[in-house]
Amino acid sequence: MTQDKPLKGVRVLDMTRVLAGPYCTMMLANLGADVIKVERPEVGDDARSFGPFFEDGEESAYFASLNSGKRSIELNLKDEKDIQTFKELIKKVDVVAENFRPGTMEKLGLGYETLKEINPEIIYAATSGFGHSGPDSKKAAYDMIVQAASGVMSITGYPDGPPVRVGVSVGDIVAGMFTASGILAALYQRTITGEGQKVDVSMLDGQVAILENAIARYMVDGEAPKPLGAKHPSITPFQAFEAKDGWFVIAAGNDTLWAKLCQAIEREDLIDDSRFKTNADRSDNIDELNEVLGEELAKKTVDEWVEIIDNHGVPTSPINSIDDLFDYPQIEARNMLVGLDDYEDDMVVAGNPIKMTNVPEEDSKPRAPKLGEHTEEVIEELLDGDKPKIEAV
Amino acid sequence: MTQDKPLKGVRVLDMTRVLAGPYCTMMLANLGADVIKVERPEVGDDARSFGPFFEDGEESAYFASLNSGKRSIELNLKDEKDIQTFKELIKKVDVVAENFRPGTMEKLGLGYETLKEINPEIIYAATSGFGHSGPDSKKAAYDMIVQAASGVMSITGYPDGPPVRVGVSVGDIVAGMFTASGILAALYQRTITGEGQKVDVSMLDGQVAILENAIARYMVDGEAPKPLGAKHPSITPFQAFEAKDGWFVIAAGNDTLWAKLCQAIEREDLIDDSRFKTNADRSDNIDELNEVLGEELAKKTVDEWVEIIDNHGVPTSPINSIDDLFDYPQIEARNMLVGLDDYEDDMVVAGNPIKMTNVPEEDSKPRAPKLGEHTEEVIEELLDGDKPKIEAV
Repeated sequence: MTQDKPLKGVRVLDMTRVLAGPYCTMMLANLGADVIKVERPEVGDDARSFGPFFEDGEESAYFASLNSGKRSIELNLKDEKDIQTFKELIKKVDVVAENFRPGTMEKLGLGYETLKEINPEIIYAATSGFGHSGPDSKKAAYDMIVQAASGVMSITGYPDGPPVRVGVSVGDIVAGMFTASGILAALYQRTITGEGQKVDVSMLDGQVAILENAIARYMVDGEAPKPLGAKHPSITPFQAFEAKDGWFVIAAGNDTLWAKLCQAIEREDLIDDSRFKTNADRSDNIDELNEVLGEELAKKTVDEWVEIIDNHGVPTSPINSIDDLFDYPQIEARNMLVGLDDYEDDMVVAGNPIKMTNVPEEDSKPRAPKLGEHTEEVIEELLDGDKPKIEAV
Repeated sequence: MTQDKPLKGVRVLDMTRVLAGPYCTMMLANLGADVIKVERPEVGDDARSFGPFFEDGEESAYFASLNSGKRSIELNLKDEKDIQTFKELIKKVDVVAENFRPGTMEKLGLGYETLKEINPEIIYAATSGFGHSGPDSKKAAYDMIVQAASGVMSITGYPDGPPVRVGVSVGDIVAGMFTASGILAALYQRTITGEGQKVDVSMLDGQVAILENAIARYMVDGEAPKPLGAKHPSITPFQAFEAKDGWFVIAAGNDTLWAKLCQAIEREDLIDDSRFKTNADRSDNIDELNEVLGEELAKKTVDEWVEIIDNHGVPTSPINSIDDLFDYPQIEARNMLVGLDDYEDDMVVAGNPIKMTNVPEEDSKPRAPKLGEHTEEVIEELLDGDKPKIEAV
């Protein structure tokens, strides 16, 4: 049985910076691709200057968590010789990825049409705020902008409360993930056709794509869905509750689970209470239900309740903070928090969530590259050392 | 140039139900795969019974939005003859996908080890709540449970406010997306090795993987990140503001954009105000800044401000509701809201966010299949009509 990672031998020339693009290429690196990060001499990816910093202020934790296992080369894409080098590299790679504002690569003379001439098999992947077409194409986007523009923000938070941004950068990350799927599909197709293609994913489109049943609900109800705090739109009880010392969640998805929950809180009398018999009853009388449950649940701590309710087979969870993850056996068993090589436990990042037979589980990941760390090595390996001198720039 | 979709010729036997799995296989269908949905006779995917309904109450909008372009066959996997049919189909497909609780396929006698014997090239993709390994493997999960367990909920909402669930089901959808990438990577590798493999993605792992810099920030600060409402942790002003008639967002990511914002609101005097000169100044004096900005921004409506601020080149957006998306030229230009064939404008769903040269842009998508609509057709096509009679079950 093959033990190589799935993308072994796939080379990615990676022009991406900050978050959406680097997240995409990190996924490819996790799957075994050789990701060669092209960075501006001396400055590099903007994210290298984003705090917080570790290693005595030398390394950006933000950058470290997004660039594990990539190589870094310095190229000045406003310099004729380096552009030449870039074009030579294009001949030797399978994928080129960028997340500039649309039109930037064309201004550099490195648009898809040009690169395709140089290497017809190239897969060109662009991640941008609004996409490579349409009236807003050239606008800049940030995660918060697309969360607001897409409707995601309109259904997150509490009714009549102030707007809430999703605390993780789903605007960027989801776009990076869709780009990765596009690249992988294009790589697959190329094995059949021998041809490359362009992949174009926008942050806004990505957010619309994850709205899913919110759009369907609007189509039927004719009313825009509203935020629901931390509860399910139609299942009850399925929400956050307050215990003696904080909040936790219970998801009693059907009548059987509701009965088990009643047993767990020692209120079997509620099972036959006509106000709460079916999910429809419970949803109709949610205020009364929450009063009864709230009173019971305030009697014990989160840890006590989660243990009891879990033992009764009802889905429940504490609302874990990031520090709680470091003491979570399932997360440890799945290697979802791993140290970066060279820094070990000083810098821990998220593990690879795509477990595959041919991707060995590892307790650590390679660290992110230093700026230009692999310039010579890559030039030597891909261009037989035949590189216009960067020092002359 | 090839005009076939990237996954043309790839056949997926799809056992998935509800959300995470069907989202994954819908991505594959969007990319051209032939997705054959295996459903329980008479009942089908649970999501077929999830409201709201359209077509005079006949069709679930929830189901319709997740199963576009798939085919449906009915098989009773507790019936010996149908199991035999399933195994015959396994010989003819590239991918089998399921999102049962771990162990379910083994109980049916259809675990990966068994299916691999039948078809060594099979790619077996499993999406589950907690994954196919670890102490919590067999536990049931819902979206809300993994949002809480992973830490995502702990950093969404307002400090000291009640917990907020991300309003879209990122727990499910992100897991479906990672599974799709795993399948695509495995398909690619199979073209080289001729071997299949197992892909195992969990909802919890997926949420941890999108925490990204929250983990890195915790590593450096030693303090668990807190929710920040709708503001950026370190850039100011970069948050939601209240206009005369509602909220909107402004993302002034650097000093230049700050100066432009001051011009937009006709308060150039603020540019040289020593309290607000640099991003560090603005972040230190955020309360004073928000008071000044709040006073100015309350003078006009959201629409007025967004137009003015946008014209000054500062990223800004209304907080769009789902209904606003239907009147959003960029979303229209990108075909991100498309009607389902047969229903046309009665049922609109999210478009395909992965734009690729070989995936033609379409203003509509195929509708979801009726239960068992393609049983005969698929049996005929894949097994030459040689099917044990389902009617006898």
